Amino acid sequence: MKSEIIVIGDELLIGQVLDTNSKWMATELNKQGWEVTRITTISDNAEDITEAISSAFLRVDVVLMTGGLGPTSDDVTKPVLCRYFGGKMIFDNSVYEQNLRYFSARGLQMNESTRRQAEVPDVCTVIPNPVGTAPIMWFEQGTKVLVAMPGVPNEMRVAMQGEVLQRLRTHYGDHDAILHRTLMVFRNTESGLSERLTTFEAELPSFIKLAYLPIPGVVRLRLTARGNDEALLSKNLDEMVEKLRNILDDDIFCEEDTTLGGALGKILLEKGLSVATAESCTGGNIAHEITLISGSSAYFNGSVVAYSNDVKQRVLGVSEEMLAQNGAVSQPVVEAMATGVMRLANTTCAIATSGIAGPNGGTPDKPVGTVWMAVCCGDKVVSECGHFVGTRAFIIERATQRAIMMLVDLLLRCDC
Amino acid sequence: MKSEIIVIGDELLIGQVLDTNSKWMATELNKQGWEVTRITTISDNAEDITEAISSAFLRVDVVLMTGGLGPTSDDVTKPVLCRYFGGKMIFDNSVYEQNLRYFSARGLQMNESTRRQAEVPDVCTVIPNPVGTAPIMWFEQGTKVLVAMPGVPNEMRVAMQGEVLQRLRTHYGDHDAILHRTLMVFRNTESGLSERLTTFEAELPSFIKLAYLPIPGVVRLRLTARGNDEALLSKNLDEMVEKLRNILDDDIFCEEDTTLGGALGKILLEKGLSVATAESCTGGNIAHEITLISGSSAYFNGSVVAYSNDVKQRVLGVSEEMLAQNGAVSQPVVEAMATGVMRLANTTCAIATSGIAGPNGGTPDKPVGTVWMAVCCGDKVVSECGHFVGTRAFIIERATQRAIMMLVDLLLRCDC
Repeated sequence: MKSEIIVIGDELLIGQVLDTNSKWMATELNKQGWEVTRITTISDNAEDITEAISSAFLRVDVVLMTGGLGPTSDDVTKPVLCRYFGGKMIFDNSVYEQNLRYFSARGLQMNESTRRQAEVPDVCTVIPNPVGTAPIMWFEQGTKVLVAMPGVPNEMRVAMQGEVLQRLRTHYGDHDAILHRTLMVFRNTESGLSERLTTFEAELPSFIKLAYLPIPGVVRLRLTARGNDEALLSKNLDEMVEKLRNILDDDIFCEEDTTLGGALGKILLEKGLSVATAESCTGGNIAHEITLISGSSAYFNGSVVAYSNDVKQRVLGVSEEMLAQNGAVSQPVVEAMATGVMRLANTTCAIATSGIAGPNGGTPDKPVGTVWMAVCCGDKVVSECGHFVGTRAFIIERATQRAIMMLVDLLLRCDC
Repeated sequence: MKSEIIVIGDELLIGQVLDTNSKWMATELNKQGWEVTRITTISDNAEDITEAISSAFLRVDVVLMTGGLGPTSDDVTKPVLCRYFGGKMIFDNSVYEQNLRYFSARGLQMNESTRRQAEVPDVCTVIPNPVGTAPIMWFEQGTKVLVAMPGVPNEMRVAMQGEVLQRLRTHYGDHDAILHRTLMVFRNTESGLSERLTTFEAELPSFIKLAYLPIPGVVRLRLTARGNDEALLSKNLDEMVEKLRNILDDDIFCEEDTTLGGALGKILLEKGLSVATAESCTGGNIAHEITLISGSSAYFNGSVVAYSNDVKQRVLGVSEEMLAQNGAVSQPVVEAMATGVMRLANTTCAIATSGIAGPNGGTPDKPVGTVWMAVCCGDKVVSECGHFVGTRAFIIERATQRAIMMLVDLLLRCDC
């Protein structure tokens, strides 16, 4: 079953808000074996909304829509949907009462514009929104279904997981299964990998597809199988994964589709190790990456974000002489930060960074983007200097990724 | 001038990769006074790409495209564009030589698939890519322009800022200016604000539009003015901002379109204060939010991510008795963490969090999503308990936002 996502909001088209909804929805739909074939982002404009729905319905039967359902006058989606499906607006008492409860539970007064949230087209089925005031609306027309959900990520997610996915499954019955396997590979460029896998790709069965998803320093290899016999698909995927293991060997560092922080966590857990971080330019982002993983408290004790030299000295025990002689962005300092936080947090491993994230603060010797990174495991210390080019956020992100992969590399190479 | 963005990549439609390119591009195009009217995300599929280009050109003259230009066989964009614009593929020696230099500077070998990166349609102008190997391609057909750029965010950004925007300006000459002003407002719901601004909205001149952009706890009010007299637009916007100041007064906490970390930073700078964070469940994310802002080292000294009780005790000085009596997720502990890190990092303010980000670890007393947050400034300490509902990442994000806004609120209320 194919579906399209329509995302509504002027704020997305001027770049003020990042759309994370469609990625999340696509992931959830995929898990159900549904394919998302297009995501269209349009403005809060009646004509554009109508046209986007019409052309989506020329291609697919299911349209999932987010946004444009707020109580303010710039949100026009509800009356547009009402006209599109040929209905009229009615006042829905059950929505009104649910919203009354929602407001009173938060000690808030309901006003006229929130009262209007209970106005809905009489041609849709209203799905209650337990975590907000905008109703979720389910429209049917012949073989077509359109579901309109709020743009607030949490409200959309609760709606999808609560009733929308279940209703879609019921409405459309059985369908092809789609299975994925992901291998995370490092020490290879995307094109280098592609050459190593030429024969493998040529020999793939027709119902399995291989995709390369590179992020700096890492390539995710994704195998996708489609068909109606899920057990057979799974067996075939297992065989293909085994073939990849034989070809790529130790360059595969994780056999799960997770983040770099998740992959590091799995290795630490397997080896019974623990980690702490000492971060200057990455400002806590490595700790954040690690702690985004549920259960990370089993191997992560803590971190010190040492922005000032004073904190580097007093908390991490980096000596004043070392800082004066080498500067904060240097190999000796970053190694001392790593070993310092390992002692302080009482862990077996550590990651440290010290660099210039910019856009200011660069020198001819150490331009913006220069980042010293060190990782240690017991008495093994490895450090390297990265030179990243881009915005401040990009440099922080790249240094975070590289520092985590340095520890992954050390842990897979040594007998820690 | 209106434009559309087409984003190509199967990885986006299965939700494996988050598209951040179109937000960034939309922001940059807007700054130039260009409007983005639609963003379409499609798969690496010749038919879809051709159809998306054709229908975009029915609506607008300018199409900016990212993705699908990698060296691997799943990237088909280049031959599709070649057919669409009626050309044939040729080998471009200048691209090849630039790629040779790119590879040798990185100590890498060029292989057959990277060699093919130098194959380009003979009907486009090739714009060099200084930070990657995929060429940027500029196509013209009558009044229409299509620019194809790599999907790697850094390569796309360098291309846009380097030559693409300049070429578009030159190609299309002058155009309407679009100016924005953003006010960040708290202590109001979106609908409450909308009621307070009913008269203001009714009196807005026709060339100025007001939009509400809510994130939890905060509403961004965005005024947008369009027209050919930039000075007049600016003067009118200034008057509207002054009207909003009179209506909303202290509920406006920032008159700039920035992040919550950026808004906090401005207030700290103005007041000559400094901050540190002590984070348990937010795992370094508050420090990351603060340090994403360039120049944050002027007011941010450091942080302790205290995941284990051991780190809470030894590094932050929270007593064993207090932890045993109240548990780590409690008001006394989070306040002790805040005052502890303020002493340790020698700052005038601090933010601390301790909670259960889930999905595991909840108890009937303290379910997943329970987060104690404390902020302090000198001897003033304010704490509150949040109850957030959602995924682990969502709970971390919401606690981060709320904790930052608690300090903003304290700093604007008190004479720190």
